[in-house]
Amino acid sequence: MMKSTIPALLLALVAVVGGHLLDGGELGTLLHGTALLIVVGGSASAILLQTPRPVIRRGLELARCLRDDEPDLVEPLVEAMLGYSRLTRRDGFLALEPAALSESEPFQRLALEMLVDGVEPEELRKTLSLDLETFESRERQAGRIWESAGAYAPTMGILGAVMGLIQVMQNLSQPSALGSGIAVAFVSTLYGVGFANLFLLPLANRIKARIVDEVRRRRMLIEGFCAVAAGNNPRVVERRMRGHVGA
Amino acid sequence: MMKSTIPALLLALVAVVGGHLLDGGELGTLLHGTALLIVVGGSASAILLQTPRPVIRRGLELARCLRDDEPDLVEPLVEAMLGYSRLTRRDGFLALEPAALSESEPFQRLALEMLVDGVEPEELRKTLSLDLETFESRERQAGRIWESAGAYAPTMGILGAVMGLIQVMQNLSQPSALGSGIAVAFVSTLYGVGFANLFLLPLANRIKARIVDEVRRRRMLIEGFCAVAAGNNPRVVERRMRGHVGA
Amino acid sequence: MMKSTIPALLLALVAVVGGHLLDGGELGTLLHGTALLIVVGGSASAILLQTPRPVIRRGLELARCLRDDEPDLVEPLVEAMLGYSRLTRRDGFLALEPAALSESEPFQRLALEMLVDGVEPEELRKTLSLDLETFESRERQAGRIWESAGAYAPTMGILGAVMGLIQVMQNLSQPSALGSGIAVAFVSTLYGVGFANLFLLPLANRIKARIVDEVRRRRMLIEGFCAVAAGNNPRVVERRMRGHVGA
Amino acid sequence: MMKSTIPALLLALVAVVGGHLLDGGELGTLLHGTALLIVVGGSASAILLQTPRPVIRRGLELARCLRDDEPDLVEPLVEAMLGYSRLTRRDGFLALEPAALSESEPFQRLALEMLVDGVEPEELRKTLSLDLETFESRERQAGRIWESAGAYAPTMGILGAVMGLIQVMQNLSQPSALGSGIAVAFVSTLYGVGFANLFLLPLANRIKARIVDEVRRRRMLIEGFCAVAAGNNPRVVERRMRGHVGA
Amino acid sequence: MMKSTIPALLLALVAVVGGHLLDGGELGTLLHGTALLIVVGGSASAILLQTPRPVIRRGLELARCLRDDEPDLVEPLVEAMLGYSRLTRRDGFLALEPAALSESEPFQRLALEMLVDGVEPEELRKTLSLDLETFESRERQAGRIWESAGAYAPTMGILGAVMGLIQVMQNLSQPSALGSGIAVAFVSTLYGVGFANLFLLPLANRIKARIVDEVRRRRMLIEGFCAVAAGNNPRVVERRMRGHVGA
Repeated sequence: MMKSTIPALLLALVAVVGGHLLDGGELGTLLHGTALLIVVGGSASAILLQTPRPVIRRGLELARCLRDDEPDLVEPLVEAMLGYSRLTRRDGFLALEPAALSESEPFQRLALEMLVDGVEPEELRKTLSLDLETFESRERQAGRIWESAGAYAPTMGILGAVMGLIQVMQNLSQPSALGSGIAVAFVSTLYGVGFANLFLLPLANRIKARIVDEVRRRRMLIEGFCAVAAGNNPRVVERRMRGHVGA
Repeated sequence: MMKSTIPALLLALVAVVGGHLLDGGELGTLLHGTALLIVVGGSASAILLQTPRPVIRRGLELARCLRDDEPDLVEPLVEAMLGYSRLTRRDGFLALEPAALSESEPFQRLALEMLVDGVEPEELRKTLSLDLETFESRERQAGRIWESAGAYAPTMGILGAVMGLIQVMQNLSQPSALGSGIAVAFVSTLYGVGFANLFLLPLANRIKARIVDEVRRRRMLIEGFCAVAAGNNPRVVERRMRGHVGA
Repeated sequence: MMKSTIPALLLALVAVVGGHLLDGGELGTLLHGTALLIVVGGSASAILLQTPRPVIRRGLELARCLRDDEPDLVEPLVEAMLGYSRLTRRDGFLALEPAALSESEPFQRLALEMLVDGVEPEELRKTLSLDLETFESRERQAGRIWESAGAYAPTMGILGAVMGLIQVMQNLSQPSALGSGIAVAFVSTLYGVGFANLFLLPLANRIKARIVDEVRRRRMLIEGFCAVAAGNNPRVVERRMRGHVGA
Repeated sequence: MMKSTIPALLLALVAVVGGHLLDGGELGTLLHGTALLIVVGGSASAILLQTPRPVIRRGLELARCLRDDEPDLVEPLVEAMLGYSRLTRRDGFLALEPAALSESEPFQRLALEMLVDGVEPEELRKTLSLDLETFESRERQAGRIWESAGAYAPTMGILGAVMGLIQVMQNLSQPSALGSGIAVAFVSTLYGVGFANLFLLPLANRIKARIVDEVRRRRMLIEGFCAVAAGNNPRVVERRMRGHVGA
Repeated sequence: MMKSTIPALLLALVAVVGGHLLDGGELGTLLHGTALLIVVGGSASAILLQTPRPVIRRGLELARCLRDDEPDLVEPLVEAMLGYSRLTRRDGFLALEPAALSESEPFQRLALEMLVDGVEPEELRKTLSLDLETFESRERQAGRIWESAGAYAPTMGILGAVMGLIQVMQNLSQPSALGSGIAVAFVSTLYGVGFANLFLLPLANRIKARIVDEVRRRRMLIEGFCAVAAGNNPRVVERRMRGHVGA
């Protein structure tokens, strides 16, 4: 993703700042501390007020998806599952104990432990599905802080613009300052709309896509683990798993 | 939550009022009784008209979530349930009678009473699920008064601004008063947008998050009570409960 | 509800008209026949065009919920159901015939008649649920005329404002009339936004709340009648019914 | 419906044009060919681009619901079904062959043919439900062209206004033409908002209501045909059917 | 589709550009490089930031639906399926092997291979339905890039307009440039609203309609393959398939 994040942000910069400069604007006009304070401070305060602290923490972590490439985990997961399938058909479920102990992902470890415990396929599916459901709803809640920020930012921009216009109107007696006052008032609108549409909302959508991918991947894992638990042959295991990712 | 409410509201104040002062505005410009009357009075009247009285009362109570920290009730609840599980497997369901009598939470008391009555697991799940569904729909309805207020407030702000502009336009003959008239007209927009986005909507979202948490917690309890009713061993009881909170 | 309708509408009046007068506006400015014609006539014509006549009739009836208090029908309904339960357990279902004949509510009468006919609990539940579903979808459709009106009114207000501005702009040569022309143009916006947010939308939401309540009450009745049909003991009948209203 | 379409459209005309004339506006101001070209042409091109040709054709047909009254088909349908019920209980399913051959509605004909073929009730329900589902999704898709048009029209109006304002601004040197230029620019907004809210959106909603009615009617038919297929007695057939229409 | 794409785009051009010229505007006013850079560059950067690369690639491919006519695949598919049905009833499932090998569509090939493998009808339905579900969610995600672009474009247009107005306001001392400055500022609004409503959103809706069609077609295929797997007679196979397309 690293690969596409930087070009995307550069393109946004070129489009907006470049457009401004091309039209003969000065860069300084676009920089305004108060506007920044209102838009960023206001949006942040709304998010802080509406979100429990652990959700904010997770939401910030999710933003790292802009830094990392999407991992292609389908092939290794199918491979691993075929390994488990062959192993358990030959040596029984207890043979999975070492794999369960060395597994670092909590979701896979939970599944492997239940297999070792000899849990029935239906119980396994129920437990893993419930875990996945909880995971998905938590991740979505965390990702929503960016969507909310993208909704608050333009409003804060309008708030800033209205406050600016109020000041301008109070000082109508100095018509010379009118234009520049209005210009300044508009900068916070620019910040609000720009931050929201060039950064916050795209980030929120990127996170959503990442969550959808991860959920799909875990559904594939559930299918695989249940097929292993039912003792299906490796070919069936593979076909069931691939159906979930359309590969 | 106390911990994050105060900083969030302070930050909002700093962002908006601070931004205004930094730009050389006077504090007095932002204070306007009529604008307050229109925005607060108008929004309140719309809420009063659309909401049955008991729902308003509950909605006001829900706003207390800004004062209290989220309780971490998962561990004590799992502990209590494991206690019930061990107790009933040893001494039968009647042994839960003292716990049922001393329980203060209505939801848990209902469940314990049904266990003492020897109700079947399926009937227990059905009754508790229905109770939870009713609870959730009532809480959401009550929380929605803040969401509605957050939707009405900006409109009332616009209403106030339009009324202000009408007056200004009526007196166009005194151009000296034009600017200050427009300024005053904009204050109610400021109030409407500000109240909605810095207080009402974040509060509404906080309440929604709190309800989602409580529902999740009760679903975990239902799972636990049903496992107890079915006489499952404590390990199963615990795994089922934890699946609902992803802990 | 009478109790809260009048204060709510008074508060709306105080907020809007009071705010206008406090700011030194004249009452006359807010009265404008043409604006009223455009906003009310336009919204009404859109509703008439989109809604079949019987739905409009029912929608107007539903507005009476602003006049009547919410009936507290839970206790009498539970009482009545317990009576039916005891009666049928002692004397059989035919003993309900007098109750069926004297019942005035069509929904309860249908249920009692089916009990007298000796219909099976499952068939009873299916028939009553279907009836309830049809009822709910019809009531919601009827209530939606107020929601639609609340959506059309502000647009009609904008339509009126645009028409007003067009006239003002046509006569720019008389700058003295400019201000008052713009003022008049804005009045229809005021009407549209005000009617929608202080009356139409709150009414629509009130009606929705009323329908949700009635549906909940009927679901409770279905639960009760089915328990009676199954010959459950009165304690079970009561617990099942109360679960639906969270009482 | 004829009965309510004409008055509704007349009322819309009176509200808008009447309001304009009452305020002393000239009719000519509201007529503007270019604005019409932009709003109607633009919306039509968007619809043409997004909709497959057969869907557009069906969408246009659906607009005829403004011309025809809603047929009251409940009673004749119940009557017909009771006839089928009595006939098949006496003479067997083959006796329906003449009815199947003479039936003109494809939905009823399909059902009657399957009855004659001796199809099982469950298979009959499945086939008819699937047919209904396909019908409903196609009709909704077709009706959506009016909803889309109602969404595009105001945007095209804004497009026209912006283009008008651009021209006005280019010619600021002739201030005398300013007002009339702005007035003309606003006419396309008027067309967009007016067409959408006084015609397109109400029509779209009317069509939706018609589809809901037709689906309800067909669900009632499915219930009836399945009861006939199961050989239920006429009283049951009638009760089941009426449940779907709340009659 | 070719047939309707070109006329639709031409109509859009005539409506907008023609309208502009008819009103006496110059074509040059509508051409503005910076506005194009901001609207197209900004929207593209937002899409790039929010969408994984393979999804963008598929989204671009889907836009080809504007070039190709909708294929009428119902008849040939029903024909082919009847062929499979007759063949397998006579010679068994292995007789499908040549068809499986020569089939070019992956979906049909998967189904034929499973039939040759002698998979049970229920397993076949489950596997194909899962594959279809994955296909549908991926296609919708890809198509959504156009919907997102249609949402970002007008905002970018507003961004450009605000930036333009800021510059104009900075230079209020040269009133002669005021009008033309504002005019230029508005051009980016024009681009944003125009691109979105005359191209991006219609394209997004067209793609959605295409996906719905393809999903319907594949559901019909699933129905057919399952009937073949169950050994149903050709008449049943055909009736089941046609139910899905309402043909």
